[in-house]
Parts: sequence; structure tokens; C-alpha cells
Amino acid sequence: MNSQSASIKEQILNIVGNDLADIEAALRSNLTPHLDLVREVAGHILFAGGKRLRPLLMFICARICGSDTPQNKRFSTIFEYLHAATLLHDDLVDDALLRRGKPAAQRVFGNETAVLTGDFLLARALSIAADTQHIEVIRIIADVTEQLSQGEIQQLHNRGRIDLTEAEYMEVIHRKTAVLIEGACHSGAIVAGAAGHEAMALKCYGQRLGMAFQMADDLLDYTSDTTGLGKSVGADLREGKLTLPVIIALKAASRKDRRWMEGIIQEKTFTETDFHQFVDLMEKYGGIAGTRDHAAKYVSDAKSCLEGFPPSSDKALLELIATYALHRKA
Amino acid sequence: MNSQSASIKEQILNIVGNDLADIEAALRSNLTPHLDLVREVAGHILFAGGKRLRPLLMFICARICGSDTPQNKRFSTIFEYLHAATLLHDDLVDDALLRRGKPAAQRVFGNETAVLTGDFLLARALSIAADTQHIEVIRIIADVTEQLSQGEIQQLHNRGRIDLTEAEYMEVIHRKTAVLIEGACHSGAIVAGAAGHEAMALKCYGQRLGMAFQMADDLLDYTSDTTGLGKSVGADLREGKLTLPVIIALKAASRKDRRWMEGIIQEKTFTETDFHQFVDLMEKYGGIAGTRDHAAKYVSDAKSCLEGFPPSSDKALLELIATYALHRKA
Repeated sequence: MNSQSASIKEQILNIVGNDLADIEAALRSNLTPHLDLVREVAGHILFAGGKRLRPLLMFICARICGSDTPQNKRFSTIFEYLHAATLLHDDLVDDALLRRGKPAAQRVFGNETAVLTGDFLLARALSIAADTQHIEVIRIIADVTEQLSQGEIQQLHNRGRIDLTEAEYMEVIHRKTAVLIEGACHSGAIVAGAAGHEAMALKCYGQRLGMAFQMADDLLDYTSDTTGLGKSVGADLREGKLTLPVIIALKAASRKDRRWMEGIIQEKTFTETDFHQFVDLMEKYGGIAGTRDHAAKYVSDAKSCLEGFPPSSDKALLELIATYALHRKA
Repeated sequence: MNSQSASIKEQILNIVGNDLADIEAALRSNLTPHLDLVREVAGHILFAGGKRLRPLLMFICARICGSDTPQNKRFSTIFEYLHAATLLHDDLVDDALLRRGKPAAQRVFGNETAVLTGDFLLARALSIAADTQHIEVIRIIADVTEQLSQGEIQQLHNRGRIDLTEAEYMEVIHRKTAVLIEGACHSGAIVAGAAGHEAMALKCYGQRLGMAFQMADDLLDYTSDTTGLGKSVGADLREGKLTLPVIIALKAASRKDRRWMEGIIQEKTFTETDFHQFVDLMEKYGGIAGTRDHAAKYVSDAKSCLEGFPPSSDKALLELIATYALHRKA
């Protein structure tokens, strides 16, 4: 899977390399806070090698609907600023150690500055959204923010709950990840002035893609290593955060193995040996494979959402990104 | 001043009692989060007896421009939600003990939930702002949020700086208080479809009023008692936060007294006797009177901004609110 993942990523980067460079430049030029410190903290999270998935999706979704302007690249920064803002607030919630391979912002600059810089980035997103002159985009940002904050609170209060159901997990990841990616795709269609059915199709694509992305993310927390991931491996387990691979495995496990796994989840401290044994049990009881199957189904659904669009390089690109969601390494 | 303050407040409440009741109802009905916990945390800050100054101003500013609809009361909740969101994030920054006479939200529900509920309230504000269909209102919210977050960060990093200048203080209070009140007044004019000069006049009124309000607030931190204020007295001094009364007094103080005052500011821990002596020195060196003079000037300027409006009960009310800013007790 390693080399397959690398090759898909390379393919995508070959196609969108120039667009990504433009987006990168727009991210910098739209970041004009009055204070150097704000620029530094915002830069800490923004320029640490994010994938720029959300702005890229917004930009391509606008283009597949017939609009390809430099303005769209500027607009697409909305969803990276919004994403970075939520990362700043979420890392505070989780008190994460690492983010994008660097110490998390709240650990470098303090909780207060991290929270306020998150607010600043949200304001930047909003300001650029106002420039689109589309109230509909504002409505999407409001909805994304509302869902995200509630999803995070929900997740926070689900911590350590070993009886979390698959349906509850799906609700949380929809709110905390899918709505943002869905919003980026939908907004791309809106700024392009797309027809209603096209906008809905791209929104649907984004939603499925977002779900698959989060499932892959939750898998990586057990199957990757810290260097590749850019954040601490096993973090979910340490936070008592039940994700799909664990939910599936717990359901299938023998009584004895389930009890042992539940003990690890509730204790939150464990040795490296415990962790490997935990992952082995997840493998044994189909948690890893089952999650991959779920993600594959969402990826396939995401591609189906695009069926109404005639063949084009952008359609192929959106399909490739969906495939990448499943095979990514970090 | 005590009885004068009470009588101005009563006069205002007599005039706007019914409008405030409608605003109160709108604040409740627009708060429809999915999760009970979010409603509880949001309610903790929202329904603890705030003055509702910002929604009231938006509503009256719309009415003085000729628009008086129930819709405007719903719109006016934007600025109370926004205000509550910033209080949640700011109390976290200050780790405040009390807010509106109750334990601050982050102390009851934890930092994480307080931050995320702040995000949720900001999203509610945005969602209602989108309903106004005025991109200009969105731009105001973006600007307010951008200024506020930067103002708070600035204040945070000014802590303990005994060389803070009056100009620096003015910049901070403009950002952290005046822009929000200015935004509420300006937005009222916008939703009313007011002419440009009327919108600018109300924006100008709000800005001056906001500056006066913050100065009065900073005075109360030294001259009020905790029961009346609903938050801990002397909090600014404990946080090493230099406000105008201190800046003025330090500038005028003898070398010996200045050294002693600087010591208190930098130590941050002090006895009640120290605190009273500190306040006595502020009195002695004109910090209290000087701040009151500054605030009075802003109140008078606020009233001047309204000169273009013909006499009306709303104009009289806006003038009365400006007078109240100066004489309020809490």
C-alpha cells in the first residue's frame, strides 16, 4: 500500500502542482494581521506542510463547474483558514503534543494565544467569504462552525465510553470532518454559479470523501508511525477516544479479549507492548479490515456522486483524490 | 453618583422594557443547538443578567433609521451571541473567576467546552447575520472578530508592562470593546437600509460610546465592589493589566510612589490594604478623575455624532445610553 499511496500522491501533485503553488501564495498574502505575533502563531499552524486538500477541492469544484479564475484561488483559502482555526481549537481540547510534525501551537504559545489566533483565522476566512458576495457561502461557514463545535464537544463527552456505537461514531466524524470538506466542495460550485444539481452532486461528493478521510485518519492512528503521521501515534487510545476500528473489534471480540481491551481504553496509560497487543487484537477481530471496507464504500459513493459530470480531467482528478483518501499514509 | 446611575438606568428600562423582553425571547429561541450540554453552557453565559446593550443598540439604530420590525429584534441577537462568544474565550485567557456574578464558564465546564461553546455561539451569530442578506453585516462581523482577537492577544502580551502608553491602551480598548459596539450600531443602520451618512453617524456614535464604556469598566475595577460588579474587583491589577487610571497615575506619581505602585503591578499578589493604598494613590495622582474626564469627552463626542438626526424619542434614548455609560455602577 505504501508505494501505491506514494504513486497516487505523486500523480495528484503532478497534475495540481502549479495550482497548489498559487494557493500557497494566496494563503500567505491573505494573512495580514496587524501583529507580528499573530502572524507567527498563524504561520506555525498554516505553513507546516498541510495537504491543502480543502482549498484544492474548492478550486477544482469551481473549475469543474466552468469557473477558472485567479480569484477562485483566493476564495479557496477560506477553507484552509477555517481548517487551521479548528485545528488550533481542537489541539487545545485534546492538548495534543504534535501537529503536522511540529509541537502543537498551544504548547509553544500557550492556550490563550492559540485560541485567539484560531478566532483570528476564522475571521480571515469570513472576511474572504464576504468578498465572494455569496450569502450562501457564509451560511456554509456558519453551518460548518456550528457542526464542528458540537461534534468536538460530543467527542469530548464520549471519551472513555466503551459502549459507543457505530452510529454515534458516524455522527461525530460527519460533524467534525465531513462538513468542512463538504462545505469546501459545495462552496466551489456556488462561487462558480453552478446549477443546483451540480452543486448538490459536489456537496455529496465532499461529504462521502470527508467521511472516508476521517476513517483513514482513524486507521492511521493505529497503523502508522509518528514520523510519517506528523502527530503522536496511539493518541486516540490515550485520550479514550473510541474510533471505528476499535468499535468493530470490541463488538467481535471474545469476552476475555474485550475485557482486556476495555481496560486499556479506560486506563489511558499503556506500554508500547500493550499498544501492539491492542493493535493485534484489532487486526484479529476485523477492526482494521472492517474500517477499510467502510472507507472504501464511502470512496466508491463519492465517485458515484460525480456520475452526472461528463468525462474531464477535473472529474478524473476528483476521482483520484477519492482513491487517495483510502490509500494515504499521512 | 450611585442614585444618579440608578435613575438613568431606570429611565432607560422604562423606555425599552418591552423591547428588551422581546430581545430576551429571541436570544432563547435562536439558541437551538443539537446538544443539551451546548445549550447549558451557552445559557450559563447568556442568561446570567447581561445588560443586552449591544442588541438594544442595534435595534434602536435600525429604528432611528426608519425600520422597526420584529425581524430586527431577531437580527439584534447577532451581537449578543458574538459578545458572549468573546466573553467565553476571554475568560479563558484571563482564567477569570467570576462573570456576571456567577463562576466563569471555563471553571464550571472546563476550558475545552468553553472554547467550543464560544465557537458555537459565533456560528449562531453568523447564521443569523446571513439571514439579514447583507454582506456588509458579515464584513462587520469578520472585522469585529479580527480586531477582537488581535486586541486580546495584544493585551495579553502587554501584561505587566509598566511602560504602557495611553495610546497603546486606547488601541487595545478600541479593538477589544469599541469595535463590537460600533459594529452593532452600524449593522442596525445597514439592516434598516439607511443612507450612507446616517450609517456613518451611528457607527461613529457606537465607537465613541464603546470607548467610554470600556473606560468606565476599567474604573469600576478599582472603584466598585465585587457584589455590584458581578466579577472580581481588582482583577486587572492581579493580571498585571495596565488600564487608563493606572497609566495616568503612574505618569503623575512621585518617584517613590511610582516605584511602589510598579512593584504591586509586577508582583500581582497583594493584600487588601495594598489594594486600598494603590487606589488611594490613583486618586491622589488624578488617575480616577482623569479617566472619568476622558470617558466624559467620548460620551460628549458620541452625542455629537447624532447631531444630524432630527429630535426623536430614539435619539433621546441613544443620548441617555451615552450618559449612562459614564454613570453606570456595574
